[in-house]
Amino acid sequence: MPRRAVPAGGRRARRVRDAAARRYGRCVTTLAERLGYRPDDRLVIISCDDLGACHAQNLGVYDALRDGLATSASLMVPAPWAREAAARYRGEDVGVHLTLNAEHDLYRWGPITHAPSLLDGDGGFPRTLEDLWDHADLDEVRRELRAQVERAIVWGFDVSHLASHLGAMHQRPEFFDIYLELAVEFRLPVRLPSTVGEEGVGFPFRRLAEEEGVLFPDHFEPARHAGSRRRLLRTLENLQPGVTEVHVQPAVDTPELRALSPNWAAWVDDLALVTVDREVATAIDRSGAVLIGFRHLREAQRAG
Amino acid sequence: MPRRAVPAGGRRARRVRDAAARRYGRCVTTLAERLGYRPDDRLVIISCDDLGACHAQNLGVYDALRDGLATSASLMVPAPWAREAAARYRGEDVGVHLTLNAEHDLYRWGPITHAPSLLDGDGGFPRTLEDLWDHADLDEVRRELRAQVERAIVWGFDVSHLASHLGAMHQRPEFFDIYLELAVEFRLPVRLPSTVGEEGVGFPFRRLAEEEGVLFPDHFEPARHAGSRRRLLRTLENLQPGVTEVHVQPAVDTPELRALSPNWAAWVDDLALVTVDREVATAIDRSGAVLIGFRHLREAQRAG
Repeated sequence: MPRRAVPAGGRRARRVRDAAARRYGRCVTTLAERLGYRPDDRLVIISCDDLGACHAQNLGVYDALRDGLATSASLMVPAPWAREAAARYRGEDVGVHLTLNAEHDLYRWGPITHAPSLLDGDGGFPRTLEDLWDHADLDEVRRELRAQVERAIVWGFDVSHLASHLGAMHQRPEFFDIYLELAVEFRLPVRLPSTVGEEGVGFPFRRLAEEEGVLFPDHFEPARHAGSRRRLLRTLENLQPGVTEVHVQPAVDTPELRALSPNWAAWVDDLALVTVDREVATAIDRSGAVLIGFRHLREAQRAG
Repeated sequence: MPRRAVPAGGRRARRVRDAAARRYGRCVTTLAERLGYRPDDRLVIISCDDLGACHAQNLGVYDALRDGLATSASLMVPAPWAREAAARYRGEDVGVHLTLNAEHDLYRWGPITHAPSLLDGDGGFPRTLEDLWDHADLDEVRRELRAQVERAIVWGFDVSHLASHLGAMHQRPEFFDIYLELAVEFRLPVRLPSTVGEEGVGFPFRRLAEEEGVLFPDHFEPARHAGSRRRLLRTLENLQPGVTEVHVQPAVDTPELRALSPNWAAWVDDLALVTVDREVATAIDRSGAVLIGFRHLREAQRAG
C-alpha cells in the first residue's frame, strides 16, 4: 500500500521545513523541500476532476477518495449535483474546479451569477473553449468564479486548491490573470500544466504564478482524451523528483452516465484504476513515491 | 386497448364541431362538444409531469408516451436534462411545465434568464412555493417563463399546453395573471385544478381563463403526495362527462433517481401504472372513455 503523508499542520510544516533547511544548508528552493521533503523525493497527488458534475461522478469520486488511492478532488460548483457532493463531504481534500463550460451535448448547467456573456443560448455555459474565450466578459468571469469559490466555502468545503475545467484559465493571459487573482485572494495553490510550454500559450504562466507566491505541482500533464490508464501508468513509471499531479475522472457505471457522454466507459475505467486495480498502487510502491494532497501545498503557500 | 383519438386538424375539427352543432341545435358550449364529441362523452388526458428533470424521468416519460397509455407530457425547460428530452423528441404531445422551483434538497437547477429574485442563494430556484411567492419579482417571473416557452419552441417542440410546476401559477392572483398572459400570447390551453375551489384561492381563476378564451380540462385533481395509483384509479372509476386530465410522474429505477428523492419508488410505480400494468387500461375500457391529448384542446382554442 502506498504511503500517505500525514496532513501537515502549519507549525509542523514549518518545523519540518526548518529542519530541511538546516540539513540542506538553507537552500530551500524546491517545492518538495517547502513541503518538508528532500529535493529528490517523489510526491504524487492523485486528483479527481468533476466532483458534482453528475450523480455517477459523485459516487465515483468519493469512492476513489475514501476507498481508493485518490488524494484530492475538485468540485464543479455550478453543476446540478454539486449540492449533493457538498452534503456527502466529510472533510476530504477538495478544491474548486473553476467552471465556465458545460461541454455535454444534452446535459446542461450554467453560471450561478448574472453572466450573459457566459451563456451559449442553449441552456447553459458554452460547450467549447473557443466559444467561451470569444464571448466572455472578464468582469463576469471574475465575479462568477469568485462566487463559485465562495459558495464552496459556504457549503462547508475546506477548499484545498483551484483547478480549471477544460483548462480554460491558463491558456489565455486575460483568463490566467483572474485564475491567479483568485489564488492570491483565497491563498490557494493551483493546477498548472508542465507539459504545455510557455511558448505554446505565449506568456510565462508558471513564472507569473511563482512571482505571486502561488504554489503548483512541478509536473502535470493535461488529458488529451478521456481515460487515464495509459497516461497515469506512464507518468508513474517515469516519475520525476518533486510533486507530480496525476488526474482521473472516476465514475460508477449507471444509465445516467451512459446517457451523459460517449466517454462513460473511460470514466468507469478510471474508477477501477484507482480502486480495485493494483497497477497504480504497484507503480507507486515501485517508485517509492509518497501520496500527498493539495492541502500540503496550501499549508506551505500560507506559511509563506 | 383504450381508443385513442385521431389528432384533429383544424379543418377536420371545425367540420366535426359544425356537425355536432347541427346535431345539438347550435348549443355548442361544453369543452367536449368543442372537441367534436357529445357532451356526455368521457375524454381523458393522461399527462406526465417533469420531463427533462433528470435522466430517469426522461426515460420514464418517453416510455409512458411511446409504449404506454400517456397521451401528453410537460417539459421543465430549465432542468439539467431538458436538452436531452429535446434531442429525443419525436413529435409527441408535449407542453411546457412552467418552472420556478427546484424542490430537491441535493439536485439543483435555476432560471435561464437574469432573475435574482428567483434564486434561493443555494444554487438554484427556491425549493418551496412560499419562498418563491414571498420573493419573486413579477417582471422576472414573466420574462423567465416566456423564455422557457420560447426555448421549448426553439428546441423543436410543438408545444401543446402550459402546466405549472408544483402549482405555483394558479394559487396567487398575480402569478395567475402571468400564466394566463402566456396562454393567450402563445394560444395554448392550460392545466387548472377543478378540485381546488375558487373560494379557496380567493379569486375566480377558472372564469378568468374562460373569459380570455383559454381552454382547460374540465376535471383535474392535483397530487397531494407522490404516487398516482390510487388517485388515478379512483378518478377513472368515477369518470365524469367531459375532459379529465390525470397526471403521473413516471421514471425508471436507476441510482440517479434513488439519490434524487425519497419519492423515487412512487415514480417508478407510476411508470408501471401506465405501461405494464393493466388496471388503467381496464378502467378506461370499462368507462368507455377516449384518450386525447392537449393538442385537441389547443386546436379547438385556436379555432376560436
